[in-house]
Amino acid sequence: MTVLYWIDLFGVAVFAMAGAIEAARNRFDLFGVLVLSFVSALGGGTLRDLLLDVSPLAWIGDLTLAYTALVSGFAMFVLAKFIRVPFQMMLYADAIGLAAFTVSGTQAAIAMELPGLIVIMMGMLSGIFGGIIRDIMANEIPLIFRRDVYATASLTGAIWVYYAQKLGMSMSLAALIGLNIVIIIRFAAIKWRLSLPAFLNTASYRKENHPREL
Amino acid sequence: MTVLYWIDLFGVAVFAMAGAIEAARNRFDLFGVLVLSFVSALGGGTLRDLLLDVSPLAWIGDLTLAYTALVSGFAMFVLAKFIRVPFQMMLYADAIGLAAFTVSGTQAAIAMELPGLIVIMMGMLSGIFGGIIRDIMANEIPLIFRRDVYATASLTGAIWVYYAQKLGMSMSLAALIGLNIVIIIRFAAIKWRLSLPAFLNTASYRKENHPREL
Amino acid sequence: MTVLYWIDLFGVAVFAMAGAIEAARNRFDLFGVLVLSFVSALGGGTLRDLLLDVSPLAWIGDLTLAYTALVSGFAMFVLAKFIRVPFQMMLYADAIGLAAFTVSGTQAAIAMELPGLIVIMMGMLSGIFGGIIRDIMANEIPLIFRRDVYATASLTGAIWVYYAQKLGMSMSLAALIGLNIVIIIRFAAIKWRLSLPAFLNTASYRKENHPREL
Repeated sequence: MTVLYWIDLFGVAVFAMAGAIEAARNRFDLFGVLVLSFVSALGGGTLRDLLLDVSPLAWIGDLTLAYTALVSGFAMFVLAKFIRVPFQMMLYADAIGLAAFTVSGTQAAIAMELPGLIVIMMGMLSGIFGGIIRDIMANEIPLIFRRDVYATASLTGAIWVYYAQKLGMSMSLAALIGLNIVIIIRFAAIKWRLSLPAFLNTASYRKENHPREL
Repeated sequence: MTVLYWIDLFGVAVFAMAGAIEAARNRFDLFGVLVLSFVSALGGGTLRDLLLDVSPLAWIGDLTLAYTALVSGFAMFVLAKFIRVPFQMMLYADAIGLAAFTVSGTQAAIAMELPGLIVIMMGMLSGIFGGIIRDIMANEIPLIFRRDVYATASLTGAIWVYYAQKLGMSMSLAALIGLNIVIIIRFAAIKWRLSLPAFLNTASYRKENHPREL
Repeated sequence: MTVLYWIDLFGVAVFAMAGAIEAARNRFDLFGVLVLSFVSALGGGTLRDLLLDVSPLAWIGDLTLAYTALVSGFAMFVLAKFIRVPFQMMLYADAIGLAAFTVSGTQAAIAMELPGLIVIMMGMLSGIFGGIIRDIMANEIPLIFRRDVYATASLTGAIWVYYAQKLGMSMSLAALIGLNIVIIIRFAAIKWRLSLPAFLNTASYRKENHPREL
């Protein structure tokens, strides 16, 4: 799965940059920027590995992951001093990272022959936990809890990958389609501001819960 | 310990509902509700298993626990749209959940033949950690830190179960009495608003620290 | 390494007291004080052990650590009712704890023959994580993220210990010098309010980011 590894690395880089931007918004110093970058990029996989008792952790066994997160965060820290990265661009890149982590996390859990519910939870958790812990460290209510198409995109992708492989589809093809499912849902959600109104109570419609920026 | 397993399941259900209510108060969407329900209900046991290096985690080894948490949280999410659950009722139910988790957590640690201090800490942690992590995710100072009869009830139950079994009492009887100890202390604390004044500094008497609702 | 063990115990005591003071500032009750003391003192080592899959955890295998944290936190809780501990004194003591944890954490990781990047990260994490999780539990943005000479001191010490031992210096001597490096950097930072201006953006110069007290 060399292609998936590269996509995973891209996901690490993108999530690290998103973490750096969040840190900059909170006026963290360089150290804080690197911590938030690292945690955003590798937190999801780390929690998955801890819960499943996988050892060593992915970024301890493969330093490329750790270096990619740190270098990407540092680059964004420097870059942010010179140019203003359009937030919309980050959202689209973030969607690709979410897709990569969801698919690779789901496949890692499938490889451990876990039950379907756990596989799907681990896939989703791999995709979204980095952002959750990032927001907690920045002392904010994780925004994901208020905008469910983010998690729903990851969930849909994880369900797809699980059932596709269960029904005999090859790992590569299932991953490729799964990536596209997550990306398309997120792109659509970003473009048209989708949410799941059927499940939302009226308070969720309030303007304050739909900030223009993440 | 079939009876204890059922009490444990009841604890999962009750804690999941309390998590759903907390999520609703913060206007989380369905996804956030399910996450907070799951974390409230299974967070304490998960942390205990991680600290003690138990693998697989309880809810990975026994999916009934995971489904109970998710279904209970979802049910409360739906229910909260139609009726207003009296908060007082939730507090009493929560006390039973606290009792169940304290007792089962203590017995799990006893079974691993750990030293007394660790057994008691693990029992208490199993009971209270779900609520702590829930409050952190909702970006609040964990209320438990300001109202010590909650933790004290759990601590008393854990100490009881540890010494009762050490002194030769049967597991079932020690558990049954332990459950009652925690429940009675919590019920009394809820009814008469007990706290431990001897240890509190004057600031703790301020009105703001005794909100009417959890 | 008997000397290092004693320094480590001193670190546990000092961090526990710092946690108790933070708890008192937030008007936690006795239970909250003990939890914050414990987490501040043993959180860094616990996270390191979890990430490296070390079992049992240090404070489960050696109860002296757990008791030291609890007794120190309790003592500070009582003491705080009678005298006012000068904050400046705590900062200096805290620097010694940071030094002890950084050095012992780095050496623990070296003993596991991990790659240099991971060794240094684990050393730094052992030193600083207790304070980070303490601030998160007290619902504050971890102050360390805004004052990088704290983390930088730990980082410098970890790098020193790693390369000193790699270049053949004896463990004891490397530890002793490493302790002094961290302590001197922190003492200087406290005395002259050092920060790393080259990496800070202008917002970091704002007064609000340089509170007089930790």
